[in-house]
Parts: sequence; structure tokens; C-alpha cells
Amino acid sequence: MIRFENDYAEGTHPRILKRLIETNEEQTPGYGTDEHCENARTYIRKACDAENADVHFLVGGTQTNMTIISSILRPHQGAVAAITGHIAAHETGAIEATGHKVLTLLSEDGKIQAEQVKELYEAHWNDVTHEHIVQPGLVYISHPSENGTTYSKSELEELSKVCRECGLPLFMDGARLGYGLVSKDSDLSLADIARLCDVFYIGGTKIGAMFGEAVVIMNDSLKKDFRYFIKQKGGLLAKGRLLGIQFETLFEDGLYYEISNHAVEMAMMIREAFVEKGFSLKYDSKTNQQFPILPNEVLMKLGKKYSFSMWEKVDATQSVVRFCTSWATKKENVELLIEDIKKLEYGCVNG
Amino acid sequence: MIRFENDYAEGTHPRILKRLIETNEEQTPGYGTDEHCENARTYIRKACDAENADVHFLVGGTQTNMTIISSILRPHQGAVAAITGHIAAHETGAIEATGHKVLTLLSEDGKIQAEQVKELYEAHWNDVTHEHIVQPGLVYISHPSENGTTYSKSELEELSKVCRECGLPLFMDGARLGYGLVSKDSDLSLADIARLCDVFYIGGTKIGAMFGEAVVIMNDSLKKDFRYFIKQKGGLLAKGRLLGIQFETLFEDGLYYEISNHAVEMAMMIREAFVEKGFSLKYDSKTNQQFPILPNEVLMKLGKKYSFSMWEKVDATQSVVRFCTSWATKKENVELLIEDIKKLEYGCVNG
Amino acid sequence: MIRFENDYAEGTHPRILKRLIETNEEQTPGYGTDEHCENARTYIRKACDAENADVHFLVGGTQTNMTIISSILRPHQGAVAAITGHIAAHETGAIEATGHKVLTLLSEDGKIQAEQVKELYEAHWNDVTHEHIVQPGLVYISHPSENGTTYSKSELEELSKVCRECGLPLFMDGARLGYGLVSKDSDLSLADIARLCDVFYIGGTKIGAMFGEAVVIMNDSLKKDFRYFIKQKGGLLAKGRLLGIQFETLFEDGLYYEISNHAVEMAMMIREAFVEKGFSLKYDSKTNQQFPILPNEVLMKLGKKYSFSMWEKVDATQSVVRFCTSWATKKENVELLIEDIKKLEYGCVNG
Amino acid sequence: MIRFENDYAEGTHPRILKRLIETNEEQTPGYGTDEHCENARTYIRKACDAENADVHFLVGGTQTNMTIISSILRPHQGAVAAITGHIAAHETGAIEATGHKVLTLLSEDGKIQAEQVKELYEAHWNDVTHEHIVQPGLVYISHPSENGTTYSKSELEELSKVCRECGLPLFMDGARLGYGLVSKDSDLSLADIARLCDVFYIGGTKIGAMFGEAVVIMNDSLKKDFRYFIKQKGGLLAKGRLLGIQFETLFEDGLYYEISNHAVEMAMMIREAFVEKGFSLKYDSKTNQQFPILPNEVLMKLGKKYSFSMWEKVDATQSVVRFCTSWATKKENVELLIEDIKKLEYGCVNG
Repeated sequence: MIRFENDYAEGTHPRILKRLIETNEEQTPGYGTDEHCENARTYIRKACDAENADVHFLVGGTQTNMTIISSILRPHQGAVAAITGHIAAHETGAIEATGHKVLTLLSEDGKIQAEQVKELYEAHWNDVTHEHIVQPGLVYISHPSENGTTYSKSELEELSKVCRECGLPLFMDGARLGYGLVSKDSDLSLADIARLCDVFYIGGTKIGAMFGEAVVIMNDSLKKDFRYFIKQKGGLLAKGRLLGIQFETLFEDGLYYEISNHAVEMAMMIREAFVEKGFSLKYDSKTNQQFPILPNEVLMKLGKKYSFSMWEKVDATQSVVRFCTSWATKKENVELLIEDIKKLEYGCVNG
Repeated sequence: MIRFENDYAEGTHPRILKRLIETNEEQTPGYGTDEHCENARTYIRKACDAENADVHFLVGGTQTNMTIISSILRPHQGAVAAITGHIAAHETGAIEATGHKVLTLLSEDGKIQAEQVKELYEAHWNDVTHEHIVQPGLVYISHPSENGTTYSKSELEELSKVCRECGLPLFMDGARLGYGLVSKDSDLSLADIARLCDVFYIGGTKIGAMFGEAVVIMNDSLKKDFRYFIKQKGGLLAKGRLLGIQFETLFEDGLYYEISNHAVEMAMMIREAFVEKGFSLKYDSKTNQQFPILPNEVLMKLGKKYSFSMWEKVDATQSVVRFCTSWATKKENVELLIEDIKKLEYGCVNG
Repeated sequence: MIRFENDYAEGTHPRILKRLIETNEEQTPGYGTDEHCENARTYIRKACDAENADVHFLVGGTQTNMTIISSILRPHQGAVAAITGHIAAHETGAIEATGHKVLTLLSEDGKIQAEQVKELYEAHWNDVTHEHIVQPGLVYISHPSENGTTYSKSELEELSKVCRECGLPLFMDGARLGYGLVSKDSDLSLADIARLCDVFYIGGTKIGAMFGEAVVIMNDSLKKDFRYFIKQKGGLLAKGRLLGIQFETLFEDGLYYEISNHAVEMAMMIREAFVEKGFSLKYDSKTNQQFPILPNEVLMKLGKKYSFSMWEKVDATQSVVRFCTSWATKKENVELLIEDIKKLEYGCVNG
Repeated sequence: MIRFENDYAEGTHPRILKRLIETNEEQTPGYGTDEHCENARTYIRKACDAENADVHFLVGGTQTNMTIISSILRPHQGAVAAITGHIAAHETGAIEATGHKVLTLLSEDGKIQAEQVKELYEAHWNDVTHEHIVQPGLVYISHPSENGTTYSKSELEELSKVCRECGLPLFMDGARLGYGLVSKDSDLSLADIARLCDVFYIGGTKIGAMFGEAVVIMNDSLKKDFRYFIKQKGGLLAKGRLLGIQFETLFEDGLYYEISNHAVEMAMMIREAFVEKGFSLKYDSKTNQQFPILPNEVLMKLGKKYSFSMWEKVDATQSVVRFCTSWATKKENVELLIEDIKKLEYGCVNG
């Protein structure tokens, strides 16, 4: 079985593993106060062109989302998010468990637009009963989105502008941030993101690290006491240096981009193969996740040799599935897959 | 100004006031352990044909909803409700503040159907990633709904059946329960409700009491330690006898129904007047709330003499508004309103 | 049975009842936006010599405590309180249910001193692991305390000074505030309290009202969005005018002080009788609660005719009990009690 | 600088590192459903002599404590713990953040006794106002305690007996469990613990793993839906196999005990040296943490060459400090330390 089902099926990128081995016997202080974490912070600030940023390291995405969001909101406020957003759909109510509603906006592609935020904000404040309604308190976006789509610089600029006008901190979930940064689709750089968001995180788990997410806090008013929140939410790793070492390796000489580029390149090859064969794509993703709509016969045929994940049933005869790539995706396996796609006899089913 | 804007504009029904006066100097133990509360419990159990019911008295609706719901759910569970449900829309996230998501179902009329619950339940358990999704933990309905619509006995029977099959306690918000009980629309009795729901409450605030909601717990497994929850959520009134006295008066000889009948009768007169004049109704309510769709000119004209509440804009020329009646609505005022409706010159605007 | 067991055994002061009757048919807007609430706010601001104060009305003490405290604290902060404080001991974890630890200080008499707050604050910040410890976020005191003791002006000034130096909002629970204001023991006025506290509440339930607590917010930074919090915690009464009418009556011409004076006068008579007979008092209360230490035989003898509450066992032969007075305590009953105390044959048991 | 300041200063035991390297390119499903996790579960069940145990893997201690405790308690219940317990003192209110009070018991040595639990339980239920007080809902103990002390089999049997009589689940925090299992002090085996506790965890982070805690649920009623809780609290690691691989290695052939034995042996050598020199120990620990009371001059002298942590000031001239050992503690470094202790000129300061 050749696996394309997710981007966390293997351990970690060999260069990270190497560094973990090299540093294993070093003695460091705990809880993220060691030199590796300090180095990683310096590299990340530089990559973000943001020397005043606060940088913290947490273990996983849900933990990071709930820690950040609950640190920002007051009790009567909620987080505005796309209805498809990870916090709205796939975190077992982690945000609600901290006391806050997720205020959802409709979205076809996983993104939300400035205009939607503006409308929700105005609807709230224009409602005479607004004190009976959860107040919007921040805006959550994912880049790339859960569907592989990305924000353009102008889209993010508009969103950021509206958020600032409304006094709503803008938080970007970057669990797969690298794939967005290198996507042909998006002209957004890390420095743009740092400039336009109040807080965001740079995902490690899905981009070559064993685990780990690097939170970057840009807005000074959100920086205070953040380490208390990490501890309270169970995210302050005793051996914090493990996170430092990983992000040091990812950011000291561009490994983060190298990994991201490889995965996206592999994904685009897969995309091309499906498109050329005449299959439709559910979402127009130029990142490491691809969502072809495939007839059942194709699913069965490909499923014998390759693993991928079921996304959603379209009707009795076809479904959306997801193919994922990562640092570990081997080109020869992608080529095998492409060969097999070419050989399929069902190319025009969506036609 | 003659007010039809809500059903809590006045103090309390004269007979309740009289009893509060008569008992004012009595000395009783606190926190709902007095004889008046005990009497009220007995009357309510009898009215519900449910001698094993636990009956508790709380002060207001939001408090009652959050106390009941948080007492039932485990941390990973949510409350299934219509998207228009009070807990979903108008309680400033009180449920989320106790840690739980409200899982919303679409609804045009404020009600939800058995089939919708079944689908949501099955969708959850059939999703292979269900551990990443909030688990449905109870079903919340309002009767009458926030839009004045009611459940029929067969509808509630189906809903109850599905809930029991799915292991989901069924909780009925009865903030305006009396108006539902006397509605020509619904054949549901208190005894039916007690038989079909796991827990519900009988609203006092909006049906003649100064304040107060009587919680009736039918399902034995939900009874344990309920007084702790009331205390923790700030609902255990020191002078609990005030609640006992009010519900004693409402239920000892049918005052609750008398009040409800009066209000619904007044509301139906208003409804008829609008309908006869050719106006449409947004919701088909046979209870104490009426939702005519009126053109701006009519709103302005009626608004000079009568108060009512804006519900929702239809378009630039017309809006849905709400007229409410209560124990305190005077027939002569309703007749004045009807006269004025008849005189309107805009009868066919919706045609 | 003549009852001295608490200060909420009866309904409400006759003048309040009269006003509720007079206003019963008035139509007012809901949720505390009516004229009675507005009048009450004006009277209270004047009584506090604080024209910029925000004044809100809630229903009960636990509700008020949890609403205020959770509105102030960030998630990693706790409320500093005496170990005997109501929020620490008798609210079923209502504060913890909003996510916050109560950080307790030892107290013999129910009060805390400036020095204790300073020490806790410094201990926190001097601990190198302080990010692993709940951060003190506000200071909660009760005046009078749960034991009937009161703060002097100089004590409150010192406490306020330390709190301001430490950046800790000072919150006074005034469930029995009136009794403290008129106590011979304390030279604190409402204006002093308004000047020295960031937020406090004026208790109604235990001082002649049917129910109700008036929150006074002095610190501008705590005022924002407070009505959202009231709604979310279930404290926004639909018929809010009931609260306005009660506090209007209590504060328009000094009824609040009149009630307080009467109760304290009655309590001091009871205190004198016990002291003259040679009994010790557990706490040196000059307010409406008295805590004599009585041998079992005395308890049994008095218990036949009078009700009072058990406070705590001293040893096998004697216990602390509580006698409470209120607006409703009749002088003739107090005189009867005093007669019976004089006749007791156990006057020197504590000697 | 030779470091004895904690037991998480290095990476991971070489055998674990080796296995992480060997398995790095394997493709596995995520979230703890892989074969390594399955193997680890089998080994742990066997080590616990508990084939029906549910075994889950989480990342860190605070996360594990809050996940377990919030999964067990209902909203009005609290966790009974020693005042020195980690959840009471050093987790930034993580338990309160899930809505629950920690009910503390006094403790000199970090342990609690059956009798104390019994007393607290009875005090609660005998208090007529118990509905106003947080109900004890489970008992939390640490073995070894935060002070290095351990429970004997008979102590745990008594505690377990009382807990079962009271209906209170017994939860053991085993962040340093291995050191307790091999301590000469304690006759408790893993099988005993599994038999006597309802739920416990086997700490990895402080016993040779990179990170990770293995939760063992014995009581069937606590097993339901536990993976939802892990996800909601941010503990469900995407690359769950990392946890599986580590615990597989620790438990397949006794590495967990080997590591524990080494660390405790090193600690006992240090203990002996201090004791022989005449220093007192604050706690009588036979585990990997040692707490000598040392005069300032000694602290300064040793501090130049060795790192250790300040525990608590005794007075102006001396303090309690902590020396910790682990898998990574080198015997030659311990011998150096012992030499230096022997050479100290302050051996009888505590005499």
C-alpha cells in the first residue's frame, strides 16, 4: 500500500531527526527556556521580518487553537470562523470547552471574505438586542484552508483592514502554512502574514516536524502572560528544547520551504494527472491536498494499491476523496500513481 | 401608547400579587424548602399526572436552560437545537459558557423534526472521525417555539421515540408553555409532555408570574444532585418561597390555563384582523405571539399609538413585526387596535 | 417558634410591597431599561457620591459574585479571598465553574488584611515558577464579613492602596452591606466604599428587599459590556423593573439605613443579653448576626421556643450558634428572648 | 556545570531514540491507532496484570490530569488532593479552568491518608448546607508524591477501600511512577496499583521518554468516550505512533524499571552523602528526588559546580534544595558530587 491519506503518516524529516540525535545528551533547562528555543525564535522573527514578535512553541493544532483563542476573548465573545474551519468542525468542541461560541460564516471553499466579517459585525451591533447575542471577539482563518485553498495578499489585506476597523484580532491557523507560502496560488509571504495578522502559527506537525506549532504574536496587547495560558492548557512541554530543535532546523536555512515545495510539487503532479484524465476537482487547491471527484469504480481500483481519505459522498456513484503529500512523499510513488491514473478507463464520468 | 411589544411588560397577575401580600409576614425556611414550594410541587405533579417527578423552581429562562443542560451533558457533548432556538440565538452564549456547543438544525418555523435528529445522530456515528466532532448529548426544543408554532402530540411522540432510541434526553423549554397548552393548534397536554420529555420547564415569567420557571424532571437519571447545580449557577433564591407562592397560585385552581387562554384569545383576535385585512403572517402562530408582515406605512401609522417589536426586515418596503399578548392585555385595547387595522388603507400590499 | 435563624425568612419590607402593588399595572420595557431602574441608579449614585458609577441590578448573591468575578479575570487568574469568604466556602464552586481558582488567605474573623494581599502578591511574582501558578487577579472581601465583622475606614484604605499598587481590582461583596454601614464598629460610608473599591454590590435580599443586589462599578475599565455578562450568567431579569422599584424604594429616602439600623439595634440587644449572662461570643460582631458560644443545655432550652442556626461545634459540650435579625424582627420577640436568656441557669459555663 | 536540577534535562534514553530512528520512515495511521500503540497497550496491560484495562497515550502531565479529571467529575464536584498536589499547586489552575474546584487536604509529606478522605467526605454529607458546597467527586494522589515520598501497599489499600465505600474514584498521578515502583520504601507493584486505583498514569517524560504519559483506566464506568476527551483537551497527537514507539520500548523488556532503578540508585548515593555529612533531609524520599536542608555557604559552594533547584527557604541561613537524578545521570558525576560533599566544612550545621 502506497499512502497518500494524510501528511503525518511518517516520523520526521531526516535533518530534524539528525539534530535530535546530535543534541540528545545535551542538558538544557525546561519549558522552552533553552538556547535551541531561543535560536528558533530568532530565525522565525527574521523569517517574519518581525523583530518584536513573541514566539512560543506548542505541541499540536487543537491545543494551539484553544490556547490562543481563550487567551484573547472575554467571556461574552466568540470566534468568527468559516463553517468549515477546524475549530468549528473538527476539534470536539475544544473552543466551546473554554467557554466560547464559534460564530460561523458560510463558505464554499473554506475561506471567508472581508465583506462577510463586516456584515456579521454590523448585524451584531445594529441588533437592538445585541446584549443577548454572543459578541464577535476575533476572526479565525486557516491558510491554506482545510480545503487546500489560499488567501491572496489582497484578500488578506482587506480582511485585516476590516478586522482592524472592527477591533477584531485576526488569527491565522497555519497548521499547513508552508504549503500556502509556496503555493503558486498565493502571493502571501510570512512577512505579509506577520504584518496583517495579530497572531498566527507556523505548523510543524504536518510539515516535516515530529510535532510542534510555533505561535507568533504580533499584537502587543495579546502578548501578556501567554506562557501562563500555555501551561494551563497543558501545552508547556517539559522538554521544550525538542520544539526548539525542530524549529531551529526548519528555519535556519530554509528547510521549511524546501519541504513545502517538495510536497506541493508532488501534489501538483497528481492534480495534473486527474485533470488531464478529465476528472473534476472539488476544490481548486494548489497546495499539498488534492480533492478529485471520482466514480466508485475508480476508487475501488486505485484503493487496491493506494490509500487516500474519503472526504464526502457526492451521490450514489461518485465521491470526493483527498490525496495528500508531504516531505516523505516519494517521486517514484507519485509516478506510479500517475501511470495508474492514465490507465483508468473512466476519464469522462464527470463530463 | 398601548403596548403589545412583549409578554413581560407588567408586574404580576392580581391573584398572585394578593397571595404575596397575604403571606408577606410568614416566616419560612429558605432556598425552596418551605411549604409553599412543597404545595406547588404537589399541584404541578398532579397537573402533569407524574407523581414521581422532581420539581424545582428557578428564576429565569436563560438560567434554567444553562442549569439543566450543563447538568446533563458530559464535556464532549453538545445540545441539539433549532438554529432559531433561544439557546442558540439569544442567550449570549450561556450554554457555551458552561463548556458545550449548541449543534444547530435548520428550521423555518422554529421547530425541529424527529427525522432531523435521527440524521444528525447517524451522521455523527457514521463519521469515522467522530471522536473529533462534538457528540450529540441531548435534544432541546421550545414549545411553543420562539416563533409561536407548536408541536402536535404525534410530532412530539416521534421526536421522543427517536430521542429514546438514540439515548438522547429530550428537554423542552416551556418559557411560554401555557400558550402552547391552550393553543387550538396543539393537542399536547402537560401529561403528554411529562410522558414524552425527560425534563422540561413550565414558564412563569411570561405567563402571569413576577418571575419564575418550574423545572420538571421526569427521567430518574437526571434527578441526582440537581439542587447543587441550581446553587452553582446562581439560581437558588434565598427567599425561595416567592417562587413557591407564585406557582401554588398558578396551579391550585387552573389560573395558569386561565391566563393562557385569555392571552391566546386576544392574540387570535389580532391575528384575524390582520388576516382579514389581507396581510400575510410570517409564522402560522396560534399562540400569544403574532407575526404579521406589514408595509412601512402601516408600521408608521400603527406605531404612533401602539408599541410592538421589530422582528426582521423583509425588504425595503416591509417588515415582520411581533404583537404579543399576556394576562394583562385588555380587551378594549385589542378592540381599538382592530378598529385601527380595519381602517388601514394598505390591505393588499402582500398580494 | 420565634425565628432568628436567618435574615431572609419573610417576604419584603411593607413599603417595598406597597410600591410593587402601586406599580403592578404599569407597562415598562424589560431587562432593566425602565424608569424605575433609572431612578434607582440615580439615587444609588447619589448615595455613593459617585456620579460616574455604573449601576446594574441582579437577582442574588452567588449570581452577582460569579458575574462580576468572571467579567474581570483573565483565564489564568484567580480571586484572592478569605478562606471563610462566601465564594470560597458556600457557593458550590460557582467561581471555579467559570474557570477560576479562589486563592484563599487564612482568616480568623472573616476579614483579610492589606499585608496578606501584599505577601501573596509578592510570593507569586517572586516565585521563579510563577507561570505554573494561578496569578492573583482581583481581591474579594465581604463587608460585613460572613462572621459579622467589619472593615474600618483605615483598614479599607490600606487594602485599597495595596490593591492599586498591585494592579488588583478590589471587589466588595455587600450582601449585608447596610448592616456594616450602620454598625458602631465601622466608620465606613457608602462614599468611602465607592472611593476605595473598584466594584461592589449593595445587598437587597438580606436587607428588606424581596430579592436583588445592586452592583456599583467604579473602575471605568470594568464597565465595558457588563450587561452581556449579566445576560450570559442568567441574571438579566425580564421584568427588571421589579429590581428598580425595590432599590428606588430603598434609596429614595433612606429606607435602606432605617432597616439596617433596626436590625442592628435588635442584634445588639441580643448580644448584650448573652454577654451580661457571661457567655462568650465567637466573633466580635456589631452587625445583625450574633455568634454566642452556648452549652448544649442552653441550646436545648432556647431551641424549644426560638429557632437559630448551628454554626460550628466547639467541643462535646458547647457550640457556636447564630442569631440573626432583620427588618422583620419584632422588638417584643427580642425582649422575650432576652427575658429567657436572663433566666438561664448556665451563665458562667465559659468562665 | 553538572546538572541535577530536574529529571527532564536531556532528550531521551538511547534505546528509545534508536527505535524512533528505525521506525522513522514507516507509514502508520494517525491519532494512536497504529500498531506501535497497540503493542504498547498490550505490554502495559501485561505489566499491570490487567487485560481489561483501557490504555491511552497523552503528551504531558498537566494535560493528562485535566483530561482525566474533567472526564470524571460532574459540574458540582471537585477533586480531593493534598495541598501540595501538582493539580493544586503547579498547573496554573488547569483543573479550575475545566470548571472544578480542587478540595485540598493538609499534608506534611505530600501524601494523604484514608482517614482524611473519610473525614472530608463525612463533613460534606453531614453538613446540612452541603448543596452549597462543592461535592467531593474523586480523589487524586501522586505516587511518588511531589516530595518523593511513596505510598505503601497497605496505605493504598486503605485509601482505595475508603474511596470505594464513598463512591469516589481514585486517580493516581504517576508522572514519576517508575521511581516509586523501584523505591525500597514502597512495596507497591503496577498490578497492585491497577487493582486499587480506578485510573492512573505511567509517566514517560520524567522516566526516559522524550515525552508521553500512558493512561490506564481500570474502572469500566470511566472508559466511555475517553478519546473524545483527549481530542477536546488538545492531547490527541497526530503522529500518535511516537507515543506508541516510546512506551513499546519502555515496556517490552523492562527498560522502564531499568531506568528507574538507575536513577534511584544514583539518588540514594547522593542522599547517603548528605546524611553522613550530618545534613537533614526535608522529606524522607527514597526516590529520584532528594531534599537536603543546606546552609547558604554550602549552597554557594556546591552551586559553582552543580545545578540543583531551590525548593523553599527555611530561614535566613539555610534552605531546602532538590537534587534530581534520571536515566541520564552519570555515575562519575555523582561520585564527583559525593567527593565534594565530603570535603564540605559545614557538616554539623543542622545539629
